[in-house]
Formats: sequence, structure tokens, C-alpha cells
Amino acid sequence: MLYVDHDGTAPSPRRVRIFLAEKGVEIPTRRLRLHVENRTPEFLAKNPVGSLPVLELDDGTCLAESLSICRYLEELHPEPALFGATPLERALVDMWTRRIELYAYVPLDLAPGFVESAPAAAEKLRNWARLALRFLDGVLAERPFVAGERYTIADVVALASLDYGARFADFPLPGDHVHLARWHARVSARPSARA
Amino acid sequence: MLYVDHDGTAPSPRRVRIFLAEKGVEIPTRRLRLHVENRTPEFLAKNPVGSLPVLELDDGTCLAESLSICRYLEELHPEPALFGATPLERALVDMWTRRIELYAYVPLDLAPGFVESAPAAAEKLRNWARLALRFLDGVLAERPFVAGERYTIADVVALASLDYGARFADFPLPGDHVHLARWHARVSARPSARA
Repeated sequence: MLYVDHDGTAPSPRRVRIFLAEKGVEIPTRRLRLHVENRTPEFLAKNPVGSLPVLELDDGTCLAESLSICRYLEELHPEPALFGATPLERALVDMWTRRIELYAYVPLDLAPGFVESAPAAAEKLRNWARLALRFLDGVLAERPFVAGERYTIADVVALASLDYGARFADFPLPGDHVHLARWHARVSARPSARA
Repeated sequence: MLYVDHDGTAPSPRRVRIFLAEKGVEIPTRRLRLHVENRTPEFLAKNPVGSLPVLELDDGTCLAESLSICRYLEELHPEPALFGATPLERALVDMWTRRIELYAYVPLDLAPGFVESAPAAAEKLRNWARLALRFLDGVLAERPFVAGERYTIADVVALASLDYGARFADFPLPGDHVHLARWHARVSARPSARA
């Protein structure tokens, strides 16, 4: 059983939904009302952190953290290889996934929480995210996907992060990032983007 | 060639050094003066982000991001398995590594940069790190290592993060976290902790 948020807006559950769609794998899914149903004792027994998504296995083992869930599913369903097909490819895909997550997603995700209490921090975080997107625009000038010639988990994380920023964190894609915009149109046109 | 910081204080290069010591693997290493030698055009051609560590392979391919480097080395040197030995173990180790990194290390690392410009943000971040350490103390009440019965990359990341917090981010281990303190003494006694 996969637990996700009720209205499909949270970026981490979306990573798993896109990933599953790319794999062509279906998993029974339960939608929980955010901040309510993921705070019950029953759910906290599955994931004491309270975050979504969570994948509950048949033996009751619960896996939290979107990318850990995707890694597990990649081992069960290796094709298409979204984490890379060789040791070096896997390392490079992991590097690009971390760059997206740590340099773009984390500041985008943190910034809104500081707008009221610490506006200087919110602005600094948004500036880091801006620098990360400019860097990514340059990367995508030279290749079709974030980690190279093929669509990978790095694209999944980038798409979920940027859409979340644009829709919920007051952070639209900068208009002059033409390579990023072309990439965004390309990955958004895949059926998985609607998952 | 592995590029690390000159004086061994940066937490990310230390992860790789500890990891290599646990594996019993030696790699030629070059120490770069932080903020100077990792800002040269020559180094930015290896890693445009400018961060350390970087692993440069014989063919010139450069891998950045500490955990991506460790993942690559795990595939080349599988024993002892520090990322887990089965798909489920690997997923759980990844989940614990992410929890340490995202909930303890990221706030610990960001907080000092906001002390002057946005003290409310610094305090909020430190509070998140406190909550993460309290959670980890409870986890370590029930098992010897972060991800379970065996020493893994999650312990490497936790040790490097906590030592960095205590030494350089004005964040000593809370005195009443006895399980965390016992774990810290145990992993610090391993020869790898001096790497």
C-alpha cells in the first residue's frame, strides 16, 4: 500500500507517482488528508516522521522518503533504468538528483516558511534556488535531460520541484531560461507528468 | 584522484574519508584550500558547483557529491556492504541516511549562515536539528546503529554531521541524549572515525 497526500499537490509523493507511471507499475494507493491523517498514532507507527509518501510492504515493513521508495521499486522493476544502468551512470544520476534536491528543492521548500518570521532568510534561500535554476538552464543547453541523454530520476525530482515552486512557493520558472523551459515542456508532455 | 579540503574539517569530504577507511580502500588524495583552490577555473571544470569532495576517474570523469562518490565506491568494493546487502536493506539504509541528512545535517549546516542576518531563521533551523537528534536518541535506544544492527553509511553521515555541528556550528550533543551519546562513543572508537 502506498500512502500519498489527498489532493496530489505535495512534491514528494508526486515523485513516486511519476516514477511509477514511467515504470508502468501500479500499486494500491491510499490518499491521506495532509496535516490530519498523517498525524494519527496509526500513521506515526508507520512513519514516526509523519511525512508522505510511505510504502507499506505486505509484511508490514514501512518505507518512507520518496527517493528511498523509488530506489526500492527500481530494484524490483529494473526496466527502464531510472537510476542509471551501470555503476558510473548510477553515480552520475545520483549526483544530479542530489544537486537538484539540495540546491533547488530544499531552498524552494524552506523559503515560504521564513517569509513572515525571517524575510532575509527567505530571500537568501530563494536566491540560492535562482542560482541553481540558472545553472540547470546552462546544463540543459547541452543535453536533453538533467543527467544526460536519457530521462532519469533526476528529471522526476526536477519536475516535481519546479512545478511545486511555481504553483505553491511563489517561484515561477524564470522567463529567460529557455533551455530549462524547453526541458520543462518536454518532460511535462510525458504521460507520467499527469500522474 | 580524490579532492578534499585542506584541513579535514568539512563534513562532506569526511564522509568519504570515513567510508574509505571502513572499506579498507586507499585512493590518491589531493587537499585543496577551501574557498580558494576549489574556486579556480581548473577545479570548476571538474565540478561547476565548486563543492568538495570530488572523485576524478582515470578517464577524466568527475564525480561530485559525497554520497554519490560513496555509492560508486560501494559498487566497486561491495564488502563490507555499507549501503545494505538486499533491496529492502538498501532502501531502509537510504531512508535513514536521508533522514539524518535532511532533518539534522541540512538545518545544522544552514543555521550559522543566518545567525547575523536572520536570527529567527537560525533558531528555527537549530530547533529542527534538536528535534531530529531527540528522535535519533529514541531510535538508538532500541538498536546499536542508526539503520539497525549493522554499521552503515547512515552512521557515517550521522557521525560527520554531529561532529561538524559540535565543532563548527555551535551545536554540541545534548547532554541528556544518553543513547545518542553511547552510539557516538561507539562509532567514534572505530579507527575510521580518525580518517
